Amino acid sequence: MTAEFRTCPITGRTVVIAPGRALRPIALNEAQPIHRRDRDGRSVCPFCEGQEHDTPGEVYAIREPGSPPNGRGWSLRVVPNKYPAVDLSPSGQRGEGLRVRGVGFGVHECVIESSAHVTNPTHLSDEAFARVLTAWRDRLRHFATDDRLVHATPFKNVGAEAGASLAHLHSQVIALPFVPDAVREEIEGAKRYFERSGQCAFCEPANPERTVHTDAHVTVFCPFAPRFGYETWVVPRTHVSHFEAMTDADAMDLAQVLKRVLSAIDRVLAEPAYNLFVHTAPLRTAPLSHYHWHVEIIPRTARAAGFEWGSGVFINAVPPERAATELKRAMDHG
Amino acid sequence: MTAEFRTCPITGRTVVIAPGRALRPIALNEAQPIHRRDRDGRSVCPFCEGQEHDTPGEVYAIREPGSPPNGRGWSLRVVPNKYPAVDLSPSGQRGEGLRVRGVGFGVHECVIESSAHVTNPTHLSDEAFARVLTAWRDRLRHFATDDRLVHATPFKNVGAEAGASLAHLHSQVIALPFVPDAVREEIEGAKRYFERSGQCAFCEPANPERTVHTDAHVTVFCPFAPRFGYETWVVPRTHVSHFEAMTDADAMDLAQVLKRVLSAIDRVLAEPAYNLFVHTAPLRTAPLSHYHWHVEIIPRTARAAGFEWGSGVFINAVPPERAATELKRAMDHG
Repeated sequence: MTAEFRTCPITGRTVVIAPGRALRPIALNEAQPIHRRDRDGRSVCPFCEGQEHDTPGEVYAIREPGSPPNGRGWSLRVVPNKYPAVDLSPSGQRGEGLRVRGVGFGVHECVIESSAHVTNPTHLSDEAFARVLTAWRDRLRHFATDDRLVHATPFKNVGAEAGASLAHLHSQVIALPFVPDAVREEIEGAKRYFERSGQCAFCEPANPERTVHTDAHVTVFCPFAPRFGYETWVVPRTHVSHFEAMTDADAMDLAQVLKRVLSAIDRVLAEPAYNLFVHTAPLRTAPLSHYHWHVEIIPRTARAAGFEWGSGVFINAVPPERAATELKRAMDHG
Repeated sequence: MTAEFRTCPITGRTVVIAPGRALRPIALNEAQPIHRRDRDGRSVCPFCEGQEHDTPGEVYAIREPGSPPNGRGWSLRVVPNKYPAVDLSPSGQRGEGLRVRGVGFGVHECVIESSAHVTNPTHLSDEAFARVLTAWRDRLRHFATDDRLVHATPFKNVGAEAGASLAHLHSQVIALPFVPDAVREEIEGAKRYFERSGQCAFCEPANPERTVHTDAHVTVFCPFAPRFGYETWVVPRTHVSHFEAMTDADAMDLAQVLKRVLSAIDRVLAEPAYNLFVHTAPLRTAPLSHYHWHVEIIPRTARAAGFEWGSGVFINAVPPERAATELKRAMDHG
């Protein structure tokens, strides 16, 4: 039960894997899932079919032929976030000494993933799940036509404890005029990895002890140096740096696996709150041989506390080898 | 209400200040404090006087003259963490390809701050609060005698939502054989700031709009690019890079201000959960002209969600100028 330091070979980030922490009788927040809980007390859900007037006008939708925009008859809608973190205001900067303030320029959209009031992503059909992925892709392709937007992140918060404000299934995409810190560091780290090893870090087969699933299209594994218990990465087998290059067939392959992974997480951790996000190359850049888009899933098994925020070093009570074993078993018997 | 990007002049970290997000009627987790909540349902608290047998043996204590170690008669005890993240196992590393695994070497201690069952730091006397700070200092001085330990972080989690597992007032210190990522980045960034501006970033007077309090000894301000709403930094006026250089008089000055700041946070946010930590220079290094130890306080006003974990870019609905105005008013009228 000796703890271990592990340094992520890509980002260089160090974590402490401390299995002994999970035994603490007085501590309930290590490796103890934070179960899904919805704050959604409204009698009328603004994301349900028939409530289209409750959201900003749709910018993308999958609809029955002939159905009018912003009316009934859809299976997926993308709308601007009603309370966006960023918007397409004219950009500009001003200094305050060495401090730089810039207008919060960008796009913040919401993908409403079902017209019915479904709240668990695993309850979507394979087709509906694949439509979410192709909607993310199509929005990134659209953002790529705007030279001012440099990078976009599709992400999903499931459960109020993971930051979701509505239970009705939805995801979000935020496009920014710069490459966000975590993505830039990952890409730079992947480049160093490639230079040292001669191969893409994400193409290299994961250690079998940490592998949850592999098929012809997709690999699922728990990363070597995870910040969170049961952190899981889902990586297409084909080397592609840009998420927006995904085909419809790729999306269906990925959807089928993602649904099974999320079901396994639901079983092992009894429906925890979680976050899921896509890491992808900057928009419009040429294909990168050292970077590889992928999905990361972070179940909420612990709350980052003072040490994590203060030091940047995460203490994780669940070795990824153990997490992978449990998830693999749940996935195989799912 | 246009959002703003702000880049921290020290770390280079970019955040989105998005005041409009706070208006969301359907979103309850932005700028909405997560109130303190304790999981502490045990009838006997292992940190109360008389329960000394419930903790590992003390390594430091402030005691009545003649009282035996690990018995009654103390006002502060430091004990090894019963379920440590790291310990003094023989260190060692092994590789797994380009992946490095090292034994989790270090020290993880718990500072029990009161023999009575007090749960709010502001209820400590000034003297008792100062004793906590001098205990941290004395432990760092002790760690500095062990060449294998390179850096130490004192920190405090208040409320279960902030990661506290016991309500009885306590803090922790973790010493590691390396400088943790967040501290290393801050020190490197402070060096760049010093080289560009000719002065220490922490000595430079904070913008009055973001200043909460200044006296002869201590400055309190909300930083320019805060990741969290009401994030507050407390900085000694005298330039010192190493926390362990603090005198008893410094500790009393700091304790008095910290108590008032925490009371102001309690009033403005109705007793939120929060984290508090010390950022200090590596142990045993010569004094640094570009770095300056300080305390950071992070009230829990939002949960980091998929975008924050995925991109590293934090969306903060509370401009620090507004947070500082509210905290200053509460502190002045406290």
